[in-house]
Amino acid sequence: MKYRDLNASTRTIMTPGPVEAEPRVLRAMATPILGQFDPEFTHMMNETMEMIRELFQTKNHWAFPVDGTSRAGIEAVLASMIEPGDRVLIPIYGRFGHLLTEIAERYGAEIYNIETEWGTVFDPEEVIREIDRVQPKIVAMVHGETSTGRMQPLQEIGGACRERDVFFVVDAVASIGGVDVKVDEWHIDAAIGGTQKCLSVPSGMAPITFNSRVEALLLERKKIEQGLAEPGSNKKAQPRVIRTNYFDLSQLMDYWSPARLNHHTEATSMLYALREGLRIVLEEGLEHRFARHSLHEQALVQGIEAMGLELYGDPSCKLPVVTCITIPEGIDGESVRAMLLNDFDIEIASSFGPLKGKIWRIGTMGYSCRKKNVLHVLGALEAVLLRHKAKIAAGRAVQAALDVYEANEHR
Amino acid sequence: MKYRDLNASTRTIMTPGPVEAEPRVLRAMATPILGQFDPEFTHMMNETMEMIRELFQTKNHWAFPVDGTSRAGIEAVLASMIEPGDRVLIPIYGRFGHLLTEIAERYGAEIYNIETEWGTVFDPEEVIREIDRVQPKIVAMVHGETSTGRMQPLQEIGGACRERDVFFVVDAVASIGGVDVKVDEWHIDAAIGGTQKCLSVPSGMAPITFNSRVEALLLERKKIEQGLAEPGSNKKAQPRVIRTNYFDLSQLMDYWSPARLNHHTEATSMLYALREGLRIVLEEGLEHRFARHSLHEQALVQGIEAMGLELYGDPSCKLPVVTCITIPEGIDGESVRAMLLNDFDIEIASSFGPLKGKIWRIGTMGYSCRKKNVLHVLGALEAVLLRHKAKIAAGRAVQAALDVYEANEHR
Repeated sequence: MKYRDLNASTRTIMTPGPVEAEPRVLRAMATPILGQFDPEFTHMMNETMEMIRELFQTKNHWAFPVDGTSRAGIEAVLASMIEPGDRVLIPIYGRFGHLLTEIAERYGAEIYNIETEWGTVFDPEEVIREIDRVQPKIVAMVHGETSTGRMQPLQEIGGACRERDVFFVVDAVASIGGVDVKVDEWHIDAAIGGTQKCLSVPSGMAPITFNSRVEALLLERKKIEQGLAEPGSNKKAQPRVIRTNYFDLSQLMDYWSPARLNHHTEATSMLYALREGLRIVLEEGLEHRFARHSLHEQALVQGIEAMGLELYGDPSCKLPVVTCITIPEGIDGESVRAMLLNDFDIEIASSFGPLKGKIWRIGTMGYSCRKKNVLHVLGALEAVLLRHKAKIAAGRAVQAALDVYEANEHR
Repeated sequence: MKYRDLNASTRTIMTPGPVEAEPRVLRAMATPILGQFDPEFTHMMNETMEMIRELFQTKNHWAFPVDGTSRAGIEAVLASMIEPGDRVLIPIYGRFGHLLTEIAERYGAEIYNIETEWGTVFDPEEVIREIDRVQPKIVAMVHGETSTGRMQPLQEIGGACRERDVFFVVDAVASIGGVDVKVDEWHIDAAIGGTQKCLSVPSGMAPITFNSRVEALLLERKKIEQGLAEPGSNKKAQPRVIRTNYFDLSQLMDYWSPARLNHHTEATSMLYALREGLRIVLEEGLEHRFARHSLHEQALVQGIEAMGLELYGDPSCKLPVVTCITIPEGIDGESVRAMLLNDFDIEIASSFGPLKGKIWRIGTMGYSCRKKNVLHVLGALEAVLLRHKAKIAAGRAVQAALDVYEANEHR
């Protein structure tokens, strides 16, 4: 046979995603298939909805995964909410604000962007002033911007949106499951999470939630799928029809409700995986989980600084689950990454656009966010940098991280 | 813990999909994650492309999965090819022709439908006459229509499309891997397959292929994603831009090429699954695989007829991997299905629209298509029908199937 048995190396994955999947999640995926309308399976679908609500800290009824990668969830929300000509305000502080813009634009939005320097975030007041100026239908923002490792405070902006009856859509792909995402308290109307980051479930599903304000909008645009509607019932034109079938949330609502109106065929094994990943999150407890992410971030940051490397970006708005490091003068960042991968089986990330070749990004997310990995990456990075003749302090990084762990045990 | 350990019943799944996944595929999904740009992973992506080419019997360069369920593949092809106002001819002979119509309509196509009675297919000459009348840019057709269990001959229509420089798009979701789908020989420009049917890979990916004619169209509509383009390079407007980001095949081409331009995060575990499923298909060999599907279909059909049940639809265009049975007068089809599931752990399907409550559909697809399952479903269906006081011949169904298997062994 030309194609060999699957035999992937066991990597230590310290990127901002995809990260190592939870072993229990991997085992869950090996479970035999159930039919999509098998009562055992639809029961699991309902349980998954409940757990997604807890994950997003929301009482919203609508909470389910979209069958595609994270950006499929983003596109489903934007495509279903945006009608051609709608004003959409998107403040950009990194690559993924550009992605929100790209998607909204393709669905015919009239886009209003404001940008701030990469490595920082917006003063909420600045965004609110722009909302008052533009009077958009929707404000869409990234919560955790992995390209720069920054996190935007959302509560004030959410409150301002709600007061003004503006929809607030949040890309929480990178933050969900690693830090607080308080959908209800922050007045977020629709939020999108990612699986392959702090949930440690493989890429391929995007949990989303939206509230009754969004539901009302979707119902105005609803059209039953041709071939499923009762004869004659669907004949009147729907001029506001959502311009995609796969991402039509009004149809997905029927699929994720007792009607179980056929749409796609739910991705069985990925649903098993997401369900198991959510069980693990809720067993650990959100507060404990966020504290764990914070602890390992501290250990990593102390180690990096003890080595004499410089962190990138404004520390006051650092995304706790991604640590960005300025590549030292004269060091080839890609050569360092290659040696980490080839000699140490460790993957860390580079970045995009203006930051390409300027920073490394190390994720501490989900199952990858653990002591073994942090100590391994610090030791290996030191060794590789010494091999590249970087001027760093030898022997200090792992010690600094161990200090953090010891101090934590004695608390 | 409120949510219990995953513990799905082991069902015998004899629907037209999703069917039982290959055990080797399930095990492959439990393999630890690799990063999306890890050379080990991109090598697997390339191998998967090669195997998809063999599956579709094509020399096309472009052959890769779309990360979503089967209809995601269909939407990716139609969304990327259709521009508002394009004439698209869609002959309908069951539910999934309506789905093609629904999707094409949402992307602004000017739709031309012809319909034929459910349970039959089109005389190719009729379709070709309509092509000459409508002069469409695209003809889109379903190859294997699971809702009615029919299969449309495509070669003549494909030839006619090519002569007239019309694009021919084929939904081969139900047929791929179970019967011949000869993309090149039949002059198909773009084809979409499904994973959860004859490939016996869980739902969640859609292998597609398209030729250089389609590629040329896509390149005319290409726009690099905002936030990835070199500064300034992307400033000129692209009036023909594809109206979706997630399903933009021109961007997916960059992701599935040595450029590896970042788009979505490839669904790692599903890619492992698809790769393993394709290995199994190619190890078995397409010819042997189709012969196996045909053998078990024969055994099932002989058994059903020996019981005294009536097959639904025109036998001359029966889809070999789906067998439709007319529900006998006075029998509650849903009650029979429920008893099969609850007492025998067997799932068979009902159908849609005008056929709802009128027929049962039994799939013989992929890993589910084996002697054990065929004998089990025949025995169980007989027992359940007797329990429902149906007038059937007792004791004959399994014997008739065994006769088919014995005759085959002696050949």
